[in-house]
Amino acid sequence: MTDSTNQRIVLASRPVGAPTADNFRLETVDKPQPKDGEILLRTIYLSLDPYMRGRMSDAESYAEPLAINDIMIGGTVCQVEASNNPEFEVGEWVLSYITGWQKYSIASGEGLLKLGKNPTNPSWALGVMGMPGFTAYMGLLDIGNPQEGETIVVASATGPVGGTVGQIGKIKGCRVVGIAGGEEKCRHAVEVLGMDACIDHKADDFAQQLAAACPDGIDVYYENVGGKVFDAVMPLLNTKARIPVCGLIAQYNATSLPEGTDRLSQLTGLILTKRLKIQGFIIFDDYGHRYNEFASDMHKWVAEGKIKYREQVEVGLENAPQHLIGLLEGKNFGKLVIEVAKPL
Amino acid sequence: MTDSTNQRIVLASRPVGAPTADNFRLETVDKPQPKDGEILLRTIYLSLDPYMRGRMSDAESYAEPLAINDIMIGGTVCQVEASNNPEFEVGEWVLSYITGWQKYSIASGEGLLKLGKNPTNPSWALGVMGMPGFTAYMGLLDIGNPQEGETIVVASATGPVGGTVGQIGKIKGCRVVGIAGGEEKCRHAVEVLGMDACIDHKADDFAQQLAAACPDGIDVYYENVGGKVFDAVMPLLNTKARIPVCGLIAQYNATSLPEGTDRLSQLTGLILTKRLKIQGFIIFDDYGHRYNEFASDMHKWVAEGKIKYREQVEVGLENAPQHLIGLLEGKNFGKLVIEVAKPL
Repeated sequence: MTDSTNQRIVLASRPVGAPTADNFRLETVDKPQPKDGEILLRTIYLSLDPYMRGRMSDAESYAEPLAINDIMIGGTVCQVEASNNPEFEVGEWVLSYITGWQKYSIASGEGLLKLGKNPTNPSWALGVMGMPGFTAYMGLLDIGNPQEGETIVVASATGPVGGTVGQIGKIKGCRVVGIAGGEEKCRHAVEVLGMDACIDHKADDFAQQLAAACPDGIDVYYENVGGKVFDAVMPLLNTKARIPVCGLIAQYNATSLPEGTDRLSQLTGLILTKRLKIQGFIIFDDYGHRYNEFASDMHKWVAEGKIKYREQVEVGLENAPQHLIGLLEGKNFGKLVIEVAKPL
Repeated sequence: MTDSTNQRIVLASRPVGAPTADNFRLETVDKPQPKDGEILLRTIYLSLDPYMRGRMSDAESYAEPLAINDIMIGGTVCQVEASNNPEFEVGEWVLSYITGWQKYSIASGEGLLKLGKNPTNPSWALGVMGMPGFTAYMGLLDIGNPQEGETIVVASATGPVGGTVGQIGKIKGCRVVGIAGGEEKCRHAVEVLGMDACIDHKADDFAQQLAAACPDGIDVYYENVGGKVFDAVMPLLNTKARIPVCGLIAQYNATSLPEGTDRLSQLTGLILTKRLKIQGFIIFDDYGHRYNEFASDMHKWVAEGKIKYREQVEVGLENAPQHLIGLLEGKNFGKLVIEVAKPL
């Protein structure tokens, strides 16, 4: 079944602090028609990811901010619904970062990654086999450089990045301590993903529990949350610890810096005395040339059952805003994906 | 002329904030006698360096703190005054990190670096040809990895580390902006050391001047001071900037963290959005295996006149405490060395 109109979600206003429903607007517009050489894409899955919060602000960041009334950006998995381009057949699946939060879009074919006519788990291209998995892989292995027997700590331990980091850490022979919100997620991290321990960051004695779970200190802290998790990690860092930084979700909604003592010099002092390496990265900009290395390893590990992957699939483009808002509060459990339409 | 007694300076008490004369005690003791296989070392030059402040505290750091009543540690250049070890001749010069702040000491020979019978500038082994020069070289080249045309910023621009960093930066084809305290030092950094600009950190509009001197931002910030210099550098850092951290002299005397807003998350946010690499290092621990590479390049550069070196030589072991106190306030101009005795 196809539609006679297109629906899309645009940035209506910039959030102050946590985003609200008012920051988004659902628009119904004409369904676009592919011209000569173009294809019509039908969005099947839309990925929701923490980085989207940054693009809604106009603060300087690694990417240009969205303008007001721009279509919200995001990775999508689409099917070709109509084609005037001989390189694309109707029914073929593609991964797109140019489509955004809308049901239909027109593409020339450039910038699309082909996924075949009948992929097994097409939505996984938005998770373990795509940007989040690649982020986990390169940040942990290239910057973190974990050695057998070392201790890795990673937060969002059931998410697509943290969950993959933890499982790669186990493949590499490390002790892995996850951090997640709530008992159910922590149980999943240990029982399904195979981490050695997982600490609930909502616990009053979170920092004490983390210290107890890291009796030999922390050699690699994979940073994707910041905030109080980083605070608890700092005193546990070993000499020559490595900290890849791919995200700071706990800080994205902050409207001002916290009052109190200024710990900036405490962090620089720790970098000196512990000889830490802290490095930020943006996966495709910094590591695009190593994608094949990741894809090859990850295919193998998934096929061998060494990497497990959990998705939370929600239905309906119109529900994407509330789910992104929830994601930033840690309400999702696994990789959050919106099913925008049924496949052809 | 030789002495009949030995003099040494010990840690009398731990400083609270800036060290004072009370924290040191000059002791006169028997002159030691070398046993079979041992040598008697006569200290000619004692190096004074910022890291010594850290060793006077009992806070956890990269090295064990001194105990109260321990002889103050430090690099020295000594002559062999008496030898019961066939591998060492009387009159021979050595570099020692085991002797510390005293006129005479006994050594087995282990851990000493031979400097020959008639070295040209024996005290340079404490500076440009030794630990500070090696620190400048590896931190800048290995962690900073400067590329031709990039902008390097370095503080303590007339000191043995900063001055060497700046000159290596020029050899590598970079724009180098130094930071130093006062007009005279700044003039030296530009006119003698060849930096493109040097900003006086005592100026009221220091941050504005630094920004004006870095029209293309900062690609490598060689961190050896911290404090307000780092504050002024932060907003100027380019995407993928590198920050080797070898010292934080502006923070060593701090007794508590400053009150105000907590900028820790601002720094981690900057690491993420600018994809910074910040890495602490301790020169001999991390790079001891690459000493020959440094020595070879530095010998060549000094011989070619590409690296210039300024020393401030002060006379008398008893004056070492006041000069270390002054060093921590930036009162020295060039590498500070105490002439403990005349050569044999």
